[in-house]
Amino acid sequence: MTEPTNNLFLKALRGESVSRPPVWMMRQAGRYLPEFMEIKKKYDFFTRCRTPELASEITVQPIRRYGMDAAILFSDILVVPQAMNIEVEMKTGVGPWLPNPIRNANDLENVIVPDINETLGYVMDAISMTKEKLNNEIPLIGFAGSPWTLLCYCVQGQGSKNFDKAKELCFTQPEVAHALLQKITDTTILYLKEKVKAGVNAVQLFDSWGGMLSPTDYQTFSWQYMQQIIDALKDDTYVIAFGKGCWFALDTMASSGAAALGVDWTCAPETARKLTGGNITLQGNFDPTRLFSPPREIKKMVTEMIDAFGKDRYIVNLGHGILPNIPIENAGAFVEAVKNYTVAT
Amino acid sequence: MTEPTNNLFLKALRGESVSRPPVWMMRQAGRYLPEFMEIKKKYDFFTRCRTPELASEITVQPIRRYGMDAAILFSDILVVPQAMNIEVEMKTGVGPWLPNPIRNANDLENVIVPDINETLGYVMDAISMTKEKLNNEIPLIGFAGSPWTLLCYCVQGQGSKNFDKAKELCFTQPEVAHALLQKITDTTILYLKEKVKAGVNAVQLFDSWGGMLSPTDYQTFSWQYMQQIIDALKDDTYVIAFGKGCWFALDTMASSGAAALGVDWTCAPETARKLTGGNITLQGNFDPTRLFSPPREIKKMVTEMIDAFGKDRYIVNLGHGILPNIPIENAGAFVEAVKNYTVAT
Repeated sequence: MTEPTNNLFLKALRGESVSRPPVWMMRQAGRYLPEFMEIKKKYDFFTRCRTPELASEITVQPIRRYGMDAAILFSDILVVPQAMNIEVEMKTGVGPWLPNPIRNANDLENVIVPDINETLGYVMDAISMTKEKLNNEIPLIGFAGSPWTLLCYCVQGQGSKNFDKAKELCFTQPEVAHALLQKITDTTILYLKEKVKAGVNAVQLFDSWGGMLSPTDYQTFSWQYMQQIIDALKDDTYVIAFGKGCWFALDTMASSGAAALGVDWTCAPETARKLTGGNITLQGNFDPTRLFSPPREIKKMVTEMIDAFGKDRYIVNLGHGILPNIPIENAGAFVEAVKNYTVAT
Repeated sequence: MTEPTNNLFLKALRGESVSRPPVWMMRQAGRYLPEFMEIKKKYDFFTRCRTPELASEITVQPIRRYGMDAAILFSDILVVPQAMNIEVEMKTGVGPWLPNPIRNANDLENVIVPDINETLGYVMDAISMTKEKLNNEIPLIGFAGSPWTLLCYCVQGQGSKNFDKAKELCFTQPEVAHALLQKITDTTILYLKEKVKAGVNAVQLFDSWGGMLSPTDYQTFSWQYMQQIIDALKDDTYVIAFGKGCWFALDTMASSGAAALGVDWTCAPETARKLTGGNITLQGNFDPTRLFSPPREIKKMVTEMIDAFGKDRYIVNLGHGILPNIPIENAGAFVEAVKNYTVAT
């Protein structure tokens, strides 16, 4: 298959020089968009994920409106534990809700490494359908949660300020934690390989809760599993590793074989370059709440951010997902600023 | 007044050499203690804060049980906004609840810089009573929330994952945000000066939500106010500055005039020493959830932590407050490990 017409994103992942950096936004297909809210009114969360027509439509909505340089398939990291025989609900006002959390070796027995096409075939169908809609104009990103981040939900049973129950399991029954992490890792590798076969041009691993671990515990309970996934995927596709709050592991990540690293907004561009040795593509790191600023200020800040990261080996993004209550024109100002970027002379 | 019999904590704050580092735990007077739960059953949150007999009793409970090297006055950071004429409730299951959050210049008009003895005299009474109970055996720490962290609650109206409304105010109505921050700063300076007069031996500033800001925004919306407080207090007492998630500002903090800096568990001891230049006293940074580990493992990790920080210019602590569901013997193992520490030869 030939590369998409707009290959800025893939060029940045390869470290090739570009006229301007590519731009996309984490959670760009989401609740800040009125057209998304129309669909949300009619279909519940997992129906949106499981219906290829809906998932592909939601995926391309932000592209139609703003023309980002990459699309990311609408889905959720929790479809993986679901496929592994762990019940996952989405409760209004609560968020993810797992009625039978994993708390011991017994609970773990029911957890399987599933047949991907049997359990997650709907994701592959959504990818095919999205690829058709994108008409090879821009690349499509697939994603998965990191094993640690998925463990957090599987053990805690819901979102949490500190995921105390998840960490308690790791620190009191480490063998159970590692067995669960390995099952998630094995599933994720199979899942992402299928996604690549179905046509995604790159994959991103989201370690949303890695930053809750100490640097030592991060290596033990998160990174070694991330590394397994990168090792298994890096010859098939570009892997972007994103760990929120994981500044302390950026040096390890930089030599992992990942094509790019996501950075959150607490790490200044210069610091991120320094911590990663300056040679790997970085992605980020606009504070999502900074999209509340007036559009003119957003444009100025985006330009400064690109100047600080440098236009090459760089993918413009937020430092975490876009918030539901961001005005649509502010999101527009963000994308616009990148498209209008020219190197200061 | 002569120094407390056990002056390990003050020696560490002065950078003097010690046989072993001092130890205390953030939130050491709290819900993991059965004797605290007895009091909690009978009196609601603000009654406990406002009744000197209760606050002083709660303050010394952990000292009786474990013999830490410093006590910290039982109170709450939200007594300051309360004194400033902002209503604050403590709702079961929700936490802090401010029914009339500050959202614009109008809301700000009712916010005052109060007379401290009129509004917070009960804190000074609690200090006097605690000093009597401590019998000059160990130092007493007073504390306040950072202006930014207090703004977070005053604007958001409750705890939050991302304090989006607080940040939105900062980024859309910066003049309102700065006026509020200045009022909080002025109040905090008066408040801490009174605490010092009442007899505390050191003060700690808690910037619990500083790590939600980008390095640039942190300087603008948090640090400049922390610095004002340090400037105003540093000739009167020892100031400990603690910013959760604020690793990126440790270099700034190190040259602020603070006697010591708190560090959370995402920053390895060697990294913290490096970021702060190696000459300032550091405090921390055991992951609070690591107190779920078996006592034997806790002791080993504490010893390694002291070895890594070095026994001098170091105060052993957690990287954030102790959790309610930590077994009491595990908290004991933490303190015990420090008391039994001997330099490896």
